[in-house]
Amino acid sequence: MLSRLAQRLAPYTAGEQPRGRTFVKLNTNENPYPPSPAAERVLHTFSAADFRLYPDPDCTALRDALAAKEGVRRENVFVGNGSDEVLAFAFAALFDPDKPVCFADVTYSFYPVYCKLFGLPYRTVPLDARWKLVREGYRDAGGIVIANPNAPTSVWEDMSCFVGGRTPAIIDEAYIDFAGKPSLAKQAAQSDNAAVVKTFSKSYALAGARCGYAVANEDIVRALMRVKDSFNSYTVNACTQAVALAALTDVAYFTDRVAAVVKTRDAFREKLLAKGYDCPVSSTNFLFAAVPDGNGERTYREWKEKGVLVRHWNAPRLQDRVRITVGTDEQMQILESLL
Amino acid sequence: MLSRLAQRLAPYTAGEQPRGRTFVKLNTNENPYPPSPAAERVLHTFSAADFRLYPDPDCTALRDALAAKEGVRRENVFVGNGSDEVLAFAFAALFDPDKPVCFADVTYSFYPVYCKLFGLPYRTVPLDARWKLVREGYRDAGGIVIANPNAPTSVWEDMSCFVGGRTPAIIDEAYIDFAGKPSLAKQAAQSDNAAVVKTFSKSYALAGARCGYAVANEDIVRALMRVKDSFNSYTVNACTQAVALAALTDVAYFTDRVAAVVKTRDAFREKLLAKGYDCPVSSTNFLFAAVPDGNGERTYREWKEKGVLVRHWNAPRLQDRVRITVGTDEQMQILESLL
Repeated sequence: MLSRLAQRLAPYTAGEQPRGRTFVKLNTNENPYPPSPAAERVLHTFSAADFRLYPDPDCTALRDALAAKEGVRRENVFVGNGSDEVLAFAFAALFDPDKPVCFADVTYSFYPVYCKLFGLPYRTVPLDARWKLVREGYRDAGGIVIANPNAPTSVWEDMSCFVGGRTPAIIDEAYIDFAGKPSLAKQAAQSDNAAVVKTFSKSYALAGARCGYAVANEDIVRALMRVKDSFNSYTVNACTQAVALAALTDVAYFTDRVAAVVKTRDAFREKLLAKGYDCPVSSTNFLFAAVPDGNGERTYREWKEKGVLVRHWNAPRLQDRVRITVGTDEQMQILESLL
Repeated sequence: MLSRLAQRLAPYTAGEQPRGRTFVKLNTNENPYPPSPAAERVLHTFSAADFRLYPDPDCTALRDALAAKEGVRRENVFVGNGSDEVLAFAFAALFDPDKPVCFADVTYSFYPVYCKLFGLPYRTVPLDARWKLVREGYRDAGGIVIANPNAPTSVWEDMSCFVGGRTPAIIDEAYIDFAGKPSLAKQAAQSDNAAVVKTFSKSYALAGARCGYAVANEDIVRALMRVKDSFNSYTVNACTQAVALAALTDVAYFTDRVAAVVKTRDAFREKLLAKGYDCPVSSTNFLFAAVPDGNGERTYREWKEKGVLVRHWNAPRLQDRVRITVGTDEQMQILESLL
C-alpha cells in the first residue's frame, strides 16, 4: 500500500550515531568543541513555556543577523532545519526535470537522493585525478550542484564562474568557514541563478540544533519560502533560532575555535603523509586519506574495533579512502597511535 | 530562474504570529497552559554542548515511549518535525497520482497544498449541512485524508471504517486528546492502509518545539523513514526529543490541563449560544462559531482591534464563521465582554 515514489527512493545513509559504547567519534564532521558560551547562556534563559506558542515561521531575527554577517538584506536569506532541508527546498525551487542536474561523481551523496525525491534526472561529472572539478562537463546542465569545499574530498576551488550564469546553481558551502576563502554568498544574492547554502552544524558546533540557511536573490528566497510553506510552516524551533543567533554574534569564540580545528587538521595531515597516507590539502574540518595498503574498509573496521570511528564508503574511487573528521588534539593523538 | 514547481505552488497560510502588540491570542489553537513541569526540568538539564553532535535520527527513546502509550511497537511509530512534516511525508509515502486524493471541502487547508507539492490530483467532498462527512463520496478515491476531530469544524465522528480498507488513508488526529474519544492509532498499526498522525503542538503545549508522529504498520513506517532520509536525516532536534519525552511521561499534568481546556471550552460554547452564535459541539480546543450578523470577517477585525485575535477564512462556507481557540478562563472572559 505504498506509493511508487516511496518504493523507488534510495535514501541517504547518514554516518553512524553510536549509542552505548563511547567512541572517539570522527565520522560525521561534527565540531570537537562545544558551541559558544553565548549559546549556552541563551539556552538557559529559555523556558519550556516558550515552546507553548509556534515559533516565528520566518526566523526574522536570525535572518537579520545573517544578512548583516553576509552583507546582504533580510530578503536574501532563507533559514531552514539544517542545510539538508535547505538543500531539499533549493532542489525543488530551482530545478526542472527537462535536462539533467549535474554534480561531481565524488561529492555529497545526498544530491542524487534529492533528485530521486523530486523526480529530477541527474548526471555525474567525474572529478579529475587530483579531485578537481572538470568544468566543461557542466556546460549543458539543467542545473548545477557544487559542494565547495567539496566533501568528502576536502578540496576547495574558486567556483565564482558558476554564480551569475544562465544555469540554476546551488553552491553548498557547508565547510567554507574552515577554508580561509571568501564565501560566494554575497555574489549569489546579486545573481539571477545561484543559491549559496550554509550550515550551523559544522563551524558553529550546532549539528544537534538543526539550523542552516541559503543566500540568494529575493525571488529565489521567496520561492524557497513557498516550498517550505507547502511542506511545513515552522521547521526551525524557537530555541534553535535563539541559540543560533547567539552563536552567530560571538565572533571571537567562533574565529578562535575554527582556527584551533584548522591547526589540528594541518598538523595531523603532516602525520598522515609521514606514515604513507595520501591526503589532499584540506579546506574543511576533515581529511580525505588513502590508506597505505589501499583497503579503506579494513582500516575503518580496525580503527572502529579500537574505539575510533571514521567514515568509509564502499563506492567507486573511494575504496582506498577513509574520511577523518578533525577532533581535538587529544583525540587525534589517540588516532595517531593507530596509524 | 525558478522551477515550474516553485511557480505553481500555492502555499499554506499559517495563522498570524504577531510581534510587537500583545494580543489575547486565540488564533492558532495553541494551548493556553505551559507544557509539563517535567519538560521544564529536562530543558534545564540540557546544555548547548549537547547540540554539538547530530541528534538521534531515529528518535529511538521517544518512539519507545510513544509505542508504550499507543499500545504498539517502536516499529509502528514515526517521529517528525511537527505533524505538518509527518503529514507531508505521509502524502509522499502513501499516495500515487493515478486517482485523486479525497478530503472534505471544509478541513485543514494544508491538504491541497501537499497535493500540489507532490503532484497529486485531489477532489474535495462537501461535508453535509451539519458538518458531517459524506462517506459515499470517498468510495473511488485514490487516497483519503480525514482530520478527526475535523478542523476548523471541531466535529468528531467515528472514522474507524476508513482503517482497514483498500484505499490508503491518513487520519489526522491533531486534536483527538480534546475529544474524549478513542484514537485509531492502534487499529492503524494493525491495518494495511492507514496512518494516524498526531502532534505535541496542541494537547502537550509544545507547538514551538516541533514534534509530531505517525502510527502505522511497519511497512508504512519504513516508507516514512525512507522519505525522511531522502529529505533531511535529522529533522527533530536533540532538545525537542528530550522535552517531548518528558511531557509524555507526565500523564497527570496532561490529563489535568486537557480537562481544564475542555471545561472552559464547553462553558464558553454555552455563552456563545446564549448570545446568538451558532456553534457545533466541539471535540477540539477551539470553537467554530457563526456570528449573529453573518459577517465573520467584520467580527474578526473588530475583535482584533480590541486586542483579541481569532481566525477567519474568506472561503466558501466559512464567511459567517470565526474559529476561536480556547484560552484560559481569564482570556475567555475578555472575549465574552466583546460578544
